[in-house]
Amino acid sequence: MPIITLTSDFGNLDYRASAVKGKILSLNPEVNIIDITHDIQAYNLIQTSYIVRNAYKHFPKGTIHILSVDSFFHKSRKNILYKADGSYFLAADNGLLSLIFFDIKPEAIYEITLNNRFDDVVSFTSTDVFVPAAVHLANGGLPEVIGRKVKSVKQLLFPKPVHNEAEKMIIGEVMYIDNFGNIISNIHKEFFENTGKGYENFTIKFRNLSLSKIFSSHTEVVSNWERETEFHGQSAAIFNDSQLLELTIYKGSKKNGAKTLFGLNVGENIYIEFS
Amino acid sequence: MPIITLTSDFGNLDYRASAVKGKILSLNPEVNIIDITHDIQAYNLIQTSYIVRNAYKHFPKGTIHILSVDSFFHKSRKNILYKADGSYFLAADNGLLSLIFFDIKPEAIYEITLNNRFDDVVSFTSTDVFVPAAVHLANGGLPEVIGRKVKSVKQLLFPKPVHNEAEKMIIGEVMYIDNFGNIISNIHKEFFENTGKGYENFTIKFRNLSLSKIFSSHTEVVSNWERETEFHGQSAAIFNDSQLLELTIYKGSKKNGAKTLFGLNVGENIYIEFS
Amino acid sequence: MPIITLTSDFGNLDYRASAVKGKILSLNPEVNIIDITHDIQAYNLIQTSYIVRNAYKHFPKGTIHILSVDSFFHKSRKNILYKADGSYFLAADNGLLSLIFFDIKPEAIYEITLNNRFDDVVSFTSTDVFVPAAVHLANGGLPEVIGRKVKSVKQLLFPKPVHNEAEKMIIGEVMYIDNFGNIISNIHKEFFENTGKGYENFTIKFRNLSLSKIFSSHTEVVSNWERETEFHGQSAAIFNDSQLLELTIYKGSKKNGAKTLFGLNVGENIYIEFS
Repeated sequence: MPIITLTSDFGNLDYRASAVKGKILSLNPEVNIIDITHDIQAYNLIQTSYIVRNAYKHFPKGTIHILSVDSFFHKSRKNILYKADGSYFLAADNGLLSLIFFDIKPEAIYEITLNNRFDDVVSFTSTDVFVPAAVHLANGGLPEVIGRKVKSVKQLLFPKPVHNEAEKMIIGEVMYIDNFGNIISNIHKEFFENTGKGYENFTIKFRNLSLSKIFSSHTEVVSNWERETEFHGQSAAIFNDSQLLELTIYKGSKKNGAKTLFGLNVGENIYIEFS
Repeated sequence: MPIITLTSDFGNLDYRASAVKGKILSLNPEVNIIDITHDIQAYNLIQTSYIVRNAYKHFPKGTIHILSVDSFFHKSRKNILYKADGSYFLAADNGLLSLIFFDIKPEAIYEITLNNRFDDVVSFTSTDVFVPAAVHLANGGLPEVIGRKVKSVKQLLFPKPVHNEAEKMIIGEVMYIDNFGNIISNIHKEFFENTGKGYENFTIKFRNLSLSKIFSSHTEVVSNWERETEFHGQSAAIFNDSQLLELTIYKGSKKNGAKTLFGLNVGENIYIEFS
Repeated sequence: MPIITLTSDFGNLDYRASAVKGKILSLNPEVNIIDITHDIQAYNLIQTSYIVRNAYKHFPKGTIHILSVDSFFHKSRKNILYKADGSYFLAADNGLLSLIFFDIKPEAIYEITLNNRFDDVVSFTSTDVFVPAAVHLANGGLPEVIGRKVKSVKQLLFPKPVHNEAEKMIIGEVMYIDNFGNIISNIHKEFFENTGKGYENFTIKFRNLSLSKIFSSHTEVVSNWERETEFHGQSAAIFNDSQLLELTIYKGSKKNGAKTLFGLNVGENIYIEFS
């Protein structure tokens, strides 16, 4: 069965997510529909991009991803079919695709035109534009039939970390806070290692706290597994499984995790000083 | 694959929703199970009816909808199989079906009798009554085999808007507040237009606020798309994609949406005065 | 289609649950993936065991259950494939399986060895260990191919109720609070009946409240179904559909249910005194 995934800020109570599913199954009952999430913060494209970038890589090539965030229909705004990394992404031309693929070149970009015949009567982009386009692809249809090629999409600036050479410092920021209260930054291991070449030491600074060691996994914090419980609540910096610098409390949760104890919010700066 | 949808107030943590899914797959592993929502407020039939009425229309005809809200088993209360608009709905005889279909005549109504043999041992209506009945239908079985025809279901009064002719006024009420804090009323565009014939002006009043224009979509609020961000936070009335009068904050969210700014709750009155 | 269920504390926003689904479908697109829940409280094994024990019984024999709670990879900790009651369970060797099956003997236990070749590079146990093992089983593969038999798993003490003979008393505790605020104890009907033999009366005591009757269902509280609404808000003890003693408010909810009115928390004692 072809796979269509759904990502939205509809929440799980409103009828919108299930309307999308019903519409897909009305057009092709043999599609496998998978929710990425419907809990995106309203209109939050940075958050959406973080989740989609990390989720889609696990799906088979050819999967079709519907991204229903900030996708109100407006005749002045294109709807986009974006092919990248072997898969399809459907979204309004709001900049989201430039955030997800800030480091990956698209294989092809189309403006979805199948909705032109509806013209002003599109009331809900997801069911009226994205779903028929997605099912067309799921049925093996060609993108060219439902869209016309365009050269680029709206560009938003992905918040990349900066190397301040004068201050011998990386300036990054908090990009996401996960369900355990872990604080995920935009500082990639590779960037850290390249920047740090030639220096002996480093200190990670945020708020009025600092850490001077980066672990390679959550459990590396536990130096003695027999006494694992003694390490509960220990704060640490790690490179997580996306190789991003993460501030964590070992076995923390939303209530007593890094977010709460360090008091950091999305967008706040994290510094790495070299010496 | 036949489709069975689930709507409940079980939440997503308790084992009840997954028990229903497991039971369905135990009886027929080739059913496509789709969640409408499990986040209905406990026992809230008005909320359930709003969501189901808007969701089911998107599903293929023949879809089987299990409605597990206020469905405690009691020998004095029937369980109902309701056929309407080409699809099947299973619910306790608690009035919910009369709310969903306040304006649609059923094609057939059955009291589910397959549970009679369990008699007093039904402990969980959804797995013990609704699931076997739903799977029977999913397998192509006839309603007559598991139920006996009845003439009607319990009637609850759907909160319809009122035309107060003396006061030249529509009195409606808030029916639902969505994930973005949008306030959805029970005032349908058609009712508004019929009532307003012969008048020149109207004013929508609620709390101590008023609006005198109704947009036809969220994005119509944005008179200049190039400067879209300037319209964030603007309040407006629109006829939404169900043609119901909705009070909205453009790009509002739960925190800063219409619900918060206007302070309205479900059941509160909204007035439209004509002149 | 083979069925794989997912239980985790990942929440529904983070990309982790969908990464697991994507990975499953990458290895076998024809698996039916069912969420038990992703809303487990971080690392809470008692809560997980309650939900899984009640959910899995409804699924067909042969279902494969992935249990992603407290499953950080650490080379000193085994990952377990547990066969019990005709189904498969994949979990870290953290004691969870001993809680779920405190009263059921396993049919076979394996240490999952397919991850040995990854050795130190396992970054996310669920996608890197559980998923390939689960799909191997879903494809009809033998457990022996991906694991080696072990004799037992880590044991945690399931909180069983105690019979204090001197005080003529059962001492139980709150095990779970459900979506309606119902308080579910660990006192099974059978244990209550066996312990109570020879006594005439009993009183259930908790905080400074007491109840002296146990109903056999929620609706038994309603002695007159015609006047059902008059019973809303009535407190009662029942043996629920798992035959566990439950304290409930008839038609209560999270806000005004037993949890709120009785003020009880998970782990607090409930006493039954006999006389």
